[in-house]
Amino acid sequence: MLGVCYYPEHWDEARWETDARRMVELGIRFVRIGEFAWSRLEPARGQFAFEWLDRAMDILARAGLKIVLGTPTATPPKWLVDECPDIIPYDKDGKPRGFGSRRHYTFSSENWWKESKRIVEIVAERYGNHQGLVGWQTDNEYGCHDTIISWGPEDLKAFKRWLRMRHQTPDQLNEAWGSVFWSMELTSFDDVALPNLTVTEPNPAARLDFWRFHSDQVAAYDKMQCDIIRKHSPGRWITHNFMGFILDFDHFKVGDNLDLASWDSYPIGFVEKFPFSEAERNRWAETSHPDIAPFHHDLYRAVGNGRFWVMEQQPGPVNWAPWNPVPKPGMVRLWTWEAIAHGAEVVSYFRWRQATFAQEQMHAGLNLAGLDELSPGGIEAQRVAQELASLGTLPDTRKARVALVFDYQSYWTTVIQPQAKDFRFEELCFRWYEAARRLGLDIDFVRPGASLEGYGLVLVPCMTEVDEAAHAALKAASGTILIGARTGSRDRNFRIPENLPPGSLSEMTGNRVIQVSTLRPGLSDPVSGIVAGSGIRWREHLQTDVEVLSTFAHGDPALTKKDNVYYLACWPDKNLLAATMRHVATNADIPIVEVPDHIRIRTRGDLTFAFNYGDSPWSVPACCELVLGEPILAPQELSVFRFTR
Amino acid sequence: MLGVCYYPEHWDEARWETDARRMVELGIRFVRIGEFAWSRLEPARGQFAFEWLDRAMDILARAGLKIVLGTPTATPPKWLVDECPDIIPYDKDGKPRGFGSRRHYTFSSENWWKESKRIVEIVAERYGNHQGLVGWQTDNEYGCHDTIISWGPEDLKAFKRWLRMRHQTPDQLNEAWGSVFWSMELTSFDDVALPNLTVTEPNPAARLDFWRFHSDQVAAYDKMQCDIIRKHSPGRWITHNFMGFILDFDHFKVGDNLDLASWDSYPIGFVEKFPFSEAERNRWAETSHPDIAPFHHDLYRAVGNGRFWVMEQQPGPVNWAPWNPVPKPGMVRLWTWEAIAHGAEVVSYFRWRQATFAQEQMHAGLNLAGLDELSPGGIEAQRVAQELASLGTLPDTRKARVALVFDYQSYWTTVIQPQAKDFRFEELCFRWYEAARRLGLDIDFVRPGASLEGYGLVLVPCMTEVDEAAHAALKAASGTILIGARTGSRDRNFRIPENLPPGSLSEMTGNRVIQVSTLRPGLSDPVSGIVAGSGIRWREHLQTDVEVLSTFAHGDPALTKKDNVYYLACWPDKNLLAATMRHVATNADIPIVEVPDHIRIRTRGDLTFAFNYGDSPWSVPACCELVLGEPILAPQELSVFRFTR
Amino acid sequence: MLGVCYYPEHWDEARWETDARRMVELGIRFVRIGEFAWSRLEPARGQFAFEWLDRAMDILARAGLKIVLGTPTATPPKWLVDECPDIIPYDKDGKPRGFGSRRHYTFSSENWWKESKRIVEIVAERYGNHQGLVGWQTDNEYGCHDTIISWGPEDLKAFKRWLRMRHQTPDQLNEAWGSVFWSMELTSFDDVALPNLTVTEPNPAARLDFWRFHSDQVAAYDKMQCDIIRKHSPGRWITHNFMGFILDFDHFKVGDNLDLASWDSYPIGFVEKFPFSEAERNRWAETSHPDIAPFHHDLYRAVGNGRFWVMEQQPGPVNWAPWNPVPKPGMVRLWTWEAIAHGAEVVSYFRWRQATFAQEQMHAGLNLAGLDELSPGGIEAQRVAQELASLGTLPDTRKARVALVFDYQSYWTTVIQPQAKDFRFEELCFRWYEAARRLGLDIDFVRPGASLEGYGLVLVPCMTEVDEAAHAALKAASGTILIGARTGSRDRNFRIPENLPPGSLSEMTGNRVIQVSTLRPGLSDPVSGIVAGSGIRWREHLQTDVEVLSTFAHGDPALTKKDNVYYLACWPDKNLLAATMRHVATNADIPIVEVPDHIRIRTRGDLTFAFNYGDSPWSVPACCELVLGEPILAPQELSVFRFTR
Ligand SMILES: [Zn+2]
Ligand SMILES: [Zn+2]
Ligand SMILES: [Zn+2]
Repeated sequence: MLGVCYYPEHWDEARWETDARRMVELGIRFVRIGEFAWSRLEPARGQFAFEWLDRAMDILARAGLKIVLGTPTATPPKWLVDECPDIIPYDKDGKPRGFGSRRHYTFSSENWWKESKRIVEIVAERYGNHQGLVGWQTDNEYGCHDTIISWGPEDLKAFKRWLRMRHQTPDQLNEAWGSVFWSMELTSFDDVALPNLTVTEPNPAARLDFWRFHSDQVAAYDKMQCDIIRKHSPGRWITHNFMGFILDFDHFKVGDNLDLASWDSYPIGFVEKFPFSEAERNRWAETSHPDIAPFHHDLYRAVGNGRFWVMEQQPGPVNWAPWNPVPKPGMVRLWTWEAIAHGAEVVSYFRWRQATFAQEQMHAGLNLAGLDELSPGGIEAQRVAQELASLGTLPDTRKARVALVFDYQSYWTTVIQPQAKDFRFEELCFRWYEAARRLGLDIDFVRPGASLEGYGLVLVPCMTEVDEAAHAALKAASGTILIGARTGSRDRNFRIPENLPPGSLSEMTGNRVIQVSTLRPGLSDPVSGIVAGSGIRWREHLQTDVEVLSTFAHGDPALTKKDNVYYLACWPDKNLLAATMRHVATNADIPIVEVPDHIRIRTRGDLTFAFNYGDSPWSVPACCELVLGEPILAPQELSVFRFTR
Repeated sequence: MLGVCYYPEHWDEARWETDARRMVELGIRFVRIGEFAWSRLEPARGQFAFEWLDRAMDILARAGLKIVLGTPTATPPKWLVDECPDIIPYDKDGKPRGFGSRRHYTFSSENWWKESKRIVEIVAERYGNHQGLVGWQTDNEYGCHDTIISWGPEDLKAFKRWLRMRHQTPDQLNEAWGSVFWSMELTSFDDVALPNLTVTEPNPAARLDFWRFHSDQVAAYDKMQCDIIRKHSPGRWITHNFMGFILDFDHFKVGDNLDLASWDSYPIGFVEKFPFSEAERNRWAETSHPDIAPFHHDLYRAVGNGRFWVMEQQPGPVNWAPWNPVPKPGMVRLWTWEAIAHGAEVVSYFRWRQATFAQEQMHAGLNLAGLDELSPGGIEAQRVAQELASLGTLPDTRKARVALVFDYQSYWTTVIQPQAKDFRFEELCFRWYEAARRLGLDIDFVRPGASLEGYGLVLVPCMTEVDEAAHAALKAASGTILIGARTGSRDRNFRIPENLPPGSLSEMTGNRVIQVSTLRPGLSDPVSGIVAGSGIRWREHLQTDVEVLSTFAHGDPALTKKDNVYYLACWPDKNLLAATMRHVATNADIPIVEVPDHIRIRTRGDLTFAFNYGDSPWSVPACCELVLGEPILAPQELSVFRFTR
Repeated sequence: MLGVCYYPEHWDEARWETDARRMVELGIRFVRIGEFAWSRLEPARGQFAFEWLDRAMDILARAGLKIVLGTPTATPPKWLVDECPDIIPYDKDGKPRGFGSRRHYTFSSENWWKESKRIVEIVAERYGNHQGLVGWQTDNEYGCHDTIISWGPEDLKAFKRWLRMRHQTPDQLNEAWGSVFWSMELTSFDDVALPNLTVTEPNPAARLDFWRFHSDQVAAYDKMQCDIIRKHSPGRWITHNFMGFILDFDHFKVGDNLDLASWDSYPIGFVEKFPFSEAERNRWAETSHPDIAPFHHDLYRAVGNGRFWVMEQQPGPVNWAPWNPVPKPGMVRLWTWEAIAHGAEVVSYFRWRQATFAQEQMHAGLNLAGLDELSPGGIEAQRVAQELASLGTLPDTRKARVALVFDYQSYWTTVIQPQAKDFRFEELCFRWYEAARRLGLDIDFVRPGASLEGYGLVLVPCMTEVDEAAHAALKAASGTILIGARTGSRDRNFRIPENLPPGSLSEMTGNRVIQVSTLRPGLSDPVSGIVAGSGIRWREHLQTDVEVLSTFAHGDPALTKKDNVYYLACWPDKNLLAATMRHVATNADIPIVEVPDHIRIRTRGDLTFAFNYGDSPWSVPACCELVLGEPILAPQELSVFRFTR
């Protein structure tokens, strides 16, 4: 199903009726509204102006559209910021981040909680039972513009409260953090300082706690909104629209509050933001890399416990990357179908009509700026709507054979202590995901500690702390497990485990990490044996008493195996990663379909979808019955088929 | 005529007499003094010490030198800054910019206006009728060191006043800025915040108004000084010494205050500061690029309404670029003659003698540091003086056949909203200028809205807002017009025009811009047809109902023509730009003389000047009578000739 | 002899006995302790807890270890910072640098001096006569993490006091600084402002004085500690552990306080931090460049007036560089012997056991993290201990034939006024040192003004101010002198000397510098003649009346000679530098042994040490008697031999 994001407050009321009608005509069924409208709902404290929204929702509902209403907390209005300046967040340099854009609040402010409760309650009460309303979105894009971690006085206050809960006494905090090092010992929780602006690096354990604290706050804040909404709006679901590659908080914990997850898919901007090579950036500039959106579809399907939407789908060029190309013709359609193939319930475009003013005026919409005239992206969306209608109900998404354990805390840990400047957790996970998808595999993301039963292959690219639940889940897994370097390298207090990494996994892997060598871009260590390639960036010196499948140049173990558990003792280069993934998938008896770098396939029930992100055609396997598309997959085209043998 | 910048206060009084005599002997006629001498004129509030300046001016005048006196406002002394700390400017991060160098004031401070009026009045009264005085310079190098825009409390106060004038009511301001987006609405002008330090980008309309406000302030401040001077110093002209590539304020508006413009020409430093390629930087490191100084000569001739000086001419290596090479032998002479060829009335060297102390001690002068001994640059200046004397009065500069419309606001707009990281307005204009000069064309700069009558070819590289006057001037133009991409893309409130760009120009061009694609450095879109090459950086998708002369790879229009109006829908690469310029000049029936990249020609009356910036010789056209120089133009040489056929 | 750094406070008391025993077994004789333990010695003001340190020192002493005790001033505890917030340093942007790591104090704070005196006195009194104690270390790594220069209110206060002493009156300060330039004149010392945060660059003379002031403070602060220690701890020596490539203060002046110098040798990190080319970085990533550690051994032997230790020797990978590779097997042993070859009395490893917590947990120790088990580096240290024992007492280090005059102030001067962005004083000195070492030469560092008698060759890469003592020492030198560009270019007040550079050296050299050209990386000026190559970066235009041995492309002098004094008028590229060094060494009759770029030799008494930092073997000269190692020097191996002919 398709949806769209709409801002009635941006357009003359006379146009709403036409807009609603044209949405329905295009094939749109859902419309998200309201998430930035606080200043229009409450122009001054306690002076509410709901009538316009009443009328807008009535018009949309009458046209047959289902409404998703956003709580307006992402944009507190000026009068509120002036009344409660303590809601303002602080950057890492200690500077307040002012009014004039969005997300100008810190989760630590008690006043902010009070005000958020107030406005959410009022909005939920008024619209909770509107006949057009089907669901809610809390806030908007938690974490966008680096807004999880704030470094102000309110944050310090809240951090101290959090630390008191976690560590109980100053002595225990000193012990946990190893404060004896450099005389950093505290005698009371009041002594705690923000872990920024220190002369050299602050204590990594303090930084990790500060990150955990902020992550916890996001989940708690979101839960507060959900609780209020549920009270006033029975029968409606709740979601939040997450972003791509924002790892500053544990999305799984926010997901626990929600009925379904959703995310905002802007594939092209990530070509500049993700650490691709220049060659990759040029290759994928106008289509995006074929795994960027799918990576997130799979991640958010897990965060939503099986259910997800794309809440905002890029419908043309955007405004926020260093360069913003027009997507190649066909890509808006392709991205939409790719989301559906991964199980998206709804793909909702951002936005109905390009704005003619303010920050996002260069962001395309389904309609040209200010006009009632479909943009090129709008025309593609129209085609998808027709195709969707012709296909009827799609089969459900099945459990994949491959699980990828994805751990937000490992991102925090490796940012705090990179040891190699280019040890980028998100890049590592992405490259493992890409390597598996090049084998035609469907992948489920799994949070640490969740059950791994039923998976033929479990991938653990990097999980720095393996807590008891994660350890138990790995022990209980019956499939093949591939564990990456740095896993088990820290305990819960950011300390090296008692008998060296991988700590509690030493028994399962049979290994002990004696030394770690990190390698600058010019250096690598060749790997040979069962799988071959090179180790780059991070390379461990193992002591092992198990089978060694591949070794580094000087004979050290690179890939080991004990029972069903493989351990890869480095950051693998492309060749080593591909070879290892092929080896473990084969070992796990999972059928693979190797695809070129510009082709991806994905199944949903008995349907297989194939997508062409590149410049050369690809032949759909001969054994298939085509449901949509052609047997020769042209550039920017897709085919849907059933395997008949 | 030649001049020089002199600082009597830097040298023992005993040397002034000799200095004046040696200046005259060298052939210097004008001397600029006084612009940094506040602490010597008023060592403490109200305690004036004019005697030294009286004596210095008397000595200079008696030696036969004509004096240009600078108002000393670029360097408020310490006692004044301590008394009135609110004159201190703030940087974009909100940090005050302290005492200890120069230009440490904000144009927004009311105290600063009061103090400026006071000192200018006192100086103008005392020296306004001095027999040696011929003219004044207001302040020094407005905008140098990023000093136009200040982000402090005084600036916010003044900005609110300015906004009240422009927008009348908060509602109209909200409407103009589109404040409804992200709940940024204001209920009073007191709500306005500085458009910096926001969580993500601030509203572009607010930023543009903030820029306009600062630009307006510069013009008003300068006018205040001019009004005082005119009252006390009848019969003397007024100028200001502008800088190169400082686009933070509208120089044309300051020019309106002045009798003539002047600028400070340091060609070599721009090799590092202008966005040249590394190859260009290496090629031009010791000569500068052949269009750097001419671009500004032509610009400031327009700002001065036909009259301009070079107030400071680089006489050797300077101190402020990342690297500071000694210019190739001959370049000081060549630059001087290039300025004269473009109509400079006087070329004044900075400075008479290299200082032995303080910030600019590595900056060459006409004399060696601390000595009465000509530097290599001094010897070249001496030669120019002799050559000038031998040539006698030069003919007047004529109106060119080519006009280049140059719009400061388009710089502000594209900095605020680049959309492509490398969309650099100044680079675009420079490349268009260069392409025209490679065809041997003389060029006049024209401000937006000024008459374009009489020009055979009008170049509009980029004018984001086409206001009524600019529109009318283009409509009235009878010559060929070449309009570049992004022109007409915004209305006066930074909004997209009602029926898409180019807004009011859609009738003249026959085009409508449906989408814009911005392309990273690795990408380009090939153009073929009447002119060929590639589009880079910025590439528009046009709807057109007029003649298409060239197209992009997929058939979209790249160059269109309606009557006398060409529209080029991209940032052209070198080949496309050269081909287009050749095509439109030919179409306009303008005779062209293609020159190699290191040769430039320029006419003044019936004289043609040719300059060799490179390493290989060039033959002066055979049809000429030589007035100066040789028929074979050696490296770093110049020739002056009359076309005889 | 070998030593180790030990932190009893990091480990359970039950392990101390074992640790001490295992140290002695490994062959360690010295143990440094205590330098970060303030919070454990004085957990709250006036509440002392010495018992644990008493016990630890007793255990170490009983085991036969000689103790070096550090004063704990590098890490003031939280309660002290809270009591005296004025001890906090400020960064160049004016931001306070907070508690939470180390070195969070400014030398300018009077409270800090009071508190430092107090704790040093208390510690010195308690332990000054402990039977195990042999020496003291003051503080820890002055200058690490950019902690010499602080930009806060306490610093301004102390700077004013210092200026009053140096300049006596505001008029003399104005004259010295050339404050008349840009009206920067002051009327009282209270007018002085910090030389940061100015609109454009501050006065270089002010910056230099600010730097000198901070440098002086370090020496005075260190002397204060030394005076207290000497009073309470008779018969014990004092050292400080300096760092590599920290040039922010004059180490020679601190050295004047000490009985011996020591430094902390982390060769691999400098591969990333020193301005090597990428090719060099890849080549030396796992061994370090062969001159990095030796350069400092020779420097600190001079700072210690002939006596030095390596107080902290890298024993494996560290944690603080962008990448931290494991050193190649053999390198820990090689580095240790290289230090000994250069005269180190003791090489002390950092640290006994890798920490499992806090900032340096990824820093290797002689034992694995948290364990009683030697690391690979520990095993190499063990081997060195055995080899040292087998060799017995080593002969003394002899005076070298080559002196390199090393002047900290020239670093400050060229940072303040680079004129070429890549004029890096430390790189210049390092390259001259490297070129001499490639000829097999031993080198002594000499401070400016110290006697140069007895040296066959004196190298002066760059000494911007040549004061009377330095001038006299050069005049008195009988050896060959090679003077580099920019020497003598400034007087004591950062002014250009009266008759141009090289000022007072113009008579010795016969030269006068008319112009300076600085060249961007793509440019160079070829040099031919007696020595050939190219000038890069900095190239002087000389007037000379002496012998010209080599010239630049256009005939200007590049290398001149007057009597025993050579002057090289540029930054030499590799070829020119090698040729020049060979020429002057030959001229000085010093025997040379050219070695490949990965081999270095060094003599100590009648022993010659050879080291192989590379991948290919090298044959020890045939004329030798081997004392240690093989005649074919394998990669990462060393040999010790006596020349027998
Ligand atoms: Zn969004
Ligand atoms: Zn100037
Ligand atoms: Zn250290």
